[in-house]
Amino acid sequence: MNIVVQNIERAEAKVVEELGKCGVATVHEAQGRTGLLAANMRPIYSGARVGASAITISAPPCDNWMLHVAIEQLRDGDILVLAPTSPSNAGYFGDLLATSAQKHGGRGLIIDGGVRDIADLTKMKFPVWSSSIFAQGTVKETLGSVNVPIVCAGCAINPGDVIVADDDGVCVVKREEAEQVLEKARARMAMEEEKRQRFLKGELGLDMYEMRARLAQKGLKYV
Amino acid sequence: MNIVVQNIERAEAKVVEELGKCGVATVHEAQGRTGLLAANMRPIYSGARVGASAITISAPPCDNWMLHVAIEQLRDGDILVLAPTSPSNAGYFGDLLATSAQKHGGRGLIIDGGVRDIADLTKMKFPVWSSSIFAQGTVKETLGSVNVPIVCAGCAINPGDVIVADDDGVCVVKREEAEQVLEKARARMAMEEEKRQRFLKGELGLDMYEMRARLAQKGLKYV
Amino acid sequence: MNIVVQNIERAEAKVVEELGKCGVATVHEAQGRTGLLAANMRPIYSGARVGASAITISAPPCDNWMLHVAIEQLRDGDILVLAPTSPSNAGYFGDLLATSAQKHGGRGLIIDGGVRDIADLTKMKFPVWSSSIFAQGTVKETLGSVNVPIVCAGCAINPGDVIVADDDGVCVVKREEAEQVLEKARARMAMEEEKRQRFLKGELGLDMYEMRARLAQKGLKYV
Amino acid sequence: MNIVVQNIERAEAKVVEELGKCGVATVHEAQGRTGLLAANMRPIYSGARVGASAITISAPPCDNWMLHVAIEQLRDGDILVLAPTSPSNAGYFGDLLATSAQKHGGRGLIIDGGVRDIADLTKMKFPVWSSSIFAQGTVKETLGSVNVPIVCAGCAINPGDVIVADDDGVCVVKREEAEQVLEKARARMAMEEEKRQRFLKGELGLDMYEMRARLAQKGLKYV
Amino acid sequence: MNIVVQNIERAEAKVVEELGKCGVATVHEAQGRTGLLAANMRPIYSGARVGASAITISAPPCDNWMLHVAIEQLRDGDILVLAPTSPSNAGYFGDLLATSAQKHGGRGLIIDGGVRDIADLTKMKFPVWSSSIFAQGTVKETLGSVNVPIVCAGCAINPGDVIVADDDGVCVVKREEAEQVLEKARARMAMEEEKRQRFLKGELGLDMYEMRARLAQKGLKYV
Amino acid sequence: MNIVVQNIERAEAKVVEELGKCGVATVHEAQGRTGLLAANMRPIYSGARVGASAITISAPPCDNWMLHVAIEQLRDGDILVLAPTSPSNAGYFGDLLATSAQKHGGRGLIIDGGVRDIADLTKMKFPVWSSSIFAQGTVKETLGSVNVPIVCAGCAINPGDVIVADDDGVCVVKREEAEQVLEKARARMAMEEEKRQRFLKGELGLDMYEMRARLAQKGLKYV
Repeated sequence: MNIVVQNIERAEAKVVEELGKCGVATVHEAQGRTGLLAANMRPIYSGARVGASAITISAPPCDNWMLHVAIEQLRDGDILVLAPTSPSNAGYFGDLLATSAQKHGGRGLIIDGGVRDIADLTKMKFPVWSSSIFAQGTVKETLGSVNVPIVCAGCAINPGDVIVADDDGVCVVKREEAEQVLEKARARMAMEEEKRQRFLKGELGLDMYEMRARLAQKGLKYV
Repeated sequence: MNIVVQNIERAEAKVVEELGKCGVATVHEAQGRTGLLAANMRPIYSGARVGASAITISAPPCDNWMLHVAIEQLRDGDILVLAPTSPSNAGYFGDLLATSAQKHGGRGLIIDGGVRDIADLTKMKFPVWSSSIFAQGTVKETLGSVNVPIVCAGCAINPGDVIVADDDGVCVVKREEAEQVLEKARARMAMEEEKRQRFLKGELGLDMYEMRARLAQKGLKYV
Repeated sequence: MNIVVQNIERAEAKVVEELGKCGVATVHEAQGRTGLLAANMRPIYSGARVGASAITISAPPCDNWMLHVAIEQLRDGDILVLAPTSPSNAGYFGDLLATSAQKHGGRGLIIDGGVRDIADLTKMKFPVWSSSIFAQGTVKETLGSVNVPIVCAGCAINPGDVIVADDDGVCVVKREEAEQVLEKARARMAMEEEKRQRFLKGELGLDMYEMRARLAQKGLKYV
Repeated sequence: MNIVVQNIERAEAKVVEELGKCGVATVHEAQGRTGLLAANMRPIYSGARVGASAITISAPPCDNWMLHVAIEQLRDGDILVLAPTSPSNAGYFGDLLATSAQKHGGRGLIIDGGVRDIADLTKMKFPVWSSSIFAQGTVKETLGSVNVPIVCAGCAINPGDVIVADDDGVCVVKREEAEQVLEKARARMAMEEEKRQRFLKGELGLDMYEMRARLAQKGLKYV
Repeated sequence: MNIVVQNIERAEAKVVEELGKCGVATVHEAQGRTGLLAANMRPIYSGARVGASAITISAPPCDNWMLHVAIEQLRDGDILVLAPTSPSNAGYFGDLLATSAQKHGGRGLIIDGGVRDIADLTKMKFPVWSSSIFAQGTVKETLGSVNVPIVCAGCAINPGDVIVADDDGVCVVKREEAEQVLEKARARMAMEEEKRQRFLKGELGLDMYEMRARLAQKGLKYV
Repeated sequence: MNIVVQNIERAEAKVVEELGKCGVATVHEAQGRTGLLAANMRPIYSGARVGASAITISAPPCDNWMLHVAIEQLRDGDILVLAPTSPSNAGYFGDLLATSAQKHGGRGLIIDGGVRDIADLTKMKFPVWSSSIFAQGTVKETLGSVNVPIVCAGCAINPGDVIVADDDGVCVVKREEAEQVLEKARARMAMEEEKRQRFLKGELGLDMYEMRARLAQKGLKYV
């Protein structure tokens, strides 16, 4: 039952990168408000922003063996995404694994678990979004799988799906919808830029979105 | 039942601003250790410090319609304070709303819920204290109220009350007590400055506060 | 029953300092993956790193009286370690106490409770690892003890034990094992440096640790 | 600042009792979906149902002195409602206090904190809704207040307000609205009974509430 | 994008029912320790045990409209499984909806959210496993979908998958693996019965599973 | 480093049993308000009450191997007490292990982790106090230790210490203090019985404990 899928499809590199630039909030909206990982998935340092293809890892609790297996599967532009099979906040990942992952093209790590060596990872500019920061060591005793469908932090992720992550958290885009989501995200960004200009001039959302009539009709009273 | 109160009283601008400078811990102590919002209300970036008058918002869970309504009620020196009617960590607020709020004099947002576009809000220097950072989009379907009494993060807040917020969290001062609390806060700061000087010279709290006798009387043994 | 133990043994100053330089993750591993405080013990600012001898404090909930007693017991190179006898997130400690503690040689505070005056403590470079940031004032009514064995954030700590703390959290080393743990930590660091070089050259953990045979034997399939 | 208000107004006894029979969900709906205390306020045993007038208590964390003061203020049909001024899960209340409260007409306790002697309270049929069950003893050192406005578990409560509590949790009804809420609650119960009969015959909510057209108009597709 | 899939496949009724009898722990083990929903999904009363086919519901936070839509899709032996698109503990479901669901063959509800009317649901013997008990009312404003793939409490669930739930929590079995899992579950139960008999005679697990040699080899010392 | 201590000292059987009858709250008070495990340690069914000698287990996360080792060390009147070395809510223990433990004299289990087969354990009258109920299976790969000092749910416990557990939670009594704590607990129970009688006659705590003068002196005002 424990497998490593070696050849996975990825979205086009350019599309993946551009999705990363759009950011989590925009991409989440562009795909119909779906794809967010749970709010407790926080970056270990501020300012990182990434778009990358998911190498998924289903790992036993407190056992980081599969991370070594997964790193071999990395290609440039990929990101490791690990979901434990049972809740664990142990420190699956630190600066040595990051050195190896970075060398093999890894752009970061998404983990519903713990991470350690935060200071070093920050210096290395290797971003991690995790549910915990914890130095607890892990073992290498039990198998898991690499590049299988997982549920990470409440969200279903397939290998090759696009991960967008920034200071707002983490969002996943299905691989086969990446191009179309990018298009919508760009349209949204253009539209937002236009609104920003109007807001900067002092126009109110109440007028811009023509909300006054609907508010009145629903019964809002000004007193 | 859903109302917008348009003319609220505020404390004197100078008093509000000065309370902000005193900071959360001092103001909380100055008013008899009351007024703190829950400890999970954290700033999205370090170093912000604000004193402002509350525009209160009672909003349905995952519905940010009332924020547009509230922004029209802002005057220079106000701060938005939103409490959902049922727990929600959705991202009610982002950089577009912040642009509008800032343009209309808003000094920030206090929200027992989620916020997004953290990186942009940080660049804009628009401070937010929230219980969550989450990009989850919200709807505009159900009415709430603006400038009514609310309970936000465990604390009762009336429109026009003074909000003091910094890296320690958020504290509310009743509008009608603002001046008197400011006076006490300043007295406290002066007193603390004097104590700081004595501590810097090496004096112990045990001596400064004459604690030794009372400790002995309660039964503390040195061994 | 409430006592202050005045003469405690400490590990050798040089050893304590060097353990601090090794960092939490390394020290935790070097002593057989033991000694970590719970993951919710987070630093109030990034980048602090400390090795120091524990002055332990068992304090009642929401009562910071014993901190004044403990500060008198500080020697240069010590750190305050406070565990409430019942859960409390109140703000036991702020900039005045920090001024006094720093003056008397204190290197920081570890507290399974709250701390306040974060901005000032950051400016003072007085590091605190706490389970909460909260401005809630405390009282001085009930005795506790200083330099007795405590359990802090899930970990047993004796007075004089070595505290190692950095961005990864907090780890305790038993006083009598400090030297031997330091030795192992250094060995580990040397070994890690060697591995880092090999990882930088692109070698995989799968090969470096000779994992392939064991993975196959356990049944991992590549597909 | 610490006061005991001795003469508070209460809603009519019959109204209070009848509100209790309506239950939490019905009363909460009848007053426009307001008044619920936080979801972590759970009964210590199943099956209790109460309608009673609030004797409010603002108490220091881990200090149960004010409970003795409050019991003297009880009249038949009252319920104790305690909010700590800072979070605490200590065991403020046990079987001895319950014996006294019950003797003086108390119908139960609502506490955003801890309670103990659960087995005895269950035998005594003295219901408690609390955020914690914990045997931690408390002190009697610091004053609080009785019959002042409090915020308990996220909800503003005034002395004399009506508390409705059952297996679903706790709801508060403003004293001055009690009669009108009861009327609406009864109307709602009658209406629900009629719906129940129709549901029992197999009618669907889609038809009973004429939802099909609106669902189609919003774009729901059956495939 | 909002759809209701009307014809879903289900596992054979007999298989579904038998899986329910095996119970959560056994079924979870039988399928390789997979399929558990998060540990905070608890039954509203003890002793319920169910095996049923999932009617899945993806619903907006605090909006229970889709439950009415889903009830029409129920067949005898089905169970409703609701996942909000953003975290919510609101009370989506109560005794009226339960009356309707029960009439249309529903065996219960699994919800990563809130439920109310606990006392009535218990009397009706309509079991619910939920992450919260909360009376908070919901709205009917925003569409969701019925019988689409969802992630509920950390677990991916497809319409027609088999839900097994008892006092230990909730487990999902993929529809297409139901028969094979049942077989393994039965084998496991037989094996466990045999072991139980040996344990009852006093045999130790150390001997029954021949662990002594492996423990010694790993280095366990008896002192 | 992984050891099993085979001969541990226990408190006198009669003392252990009698402490169990005193109950958690009384014993906790009798020993100066110490010894409580964290409030999230809850019984899996109501009404169990136990006094027993601790067989302590330090176990890796999600690995229940050491339970088999520990069961061999049980004598009549003992209780298993397990602390994971890193947080885990996995289901370490179920009805088969309970059958074996019960056969060898075990009176129950205290575990800062998960337990499963709740319905069976309830039928068997094998009480468990745990921080989680979860069916997640565990492995048998990594050693731990038996009968070594542990920290369980925030409390230091030595092998042979007395565990008292009931509906209020779990309390530990140091083995060497057991007799003296029992004496104090009995004195306390007698004193409580006397107070109960006075409360039943309507006497107020304010009078019984002569609190009125001290309240007035601290400044409490009746209005």
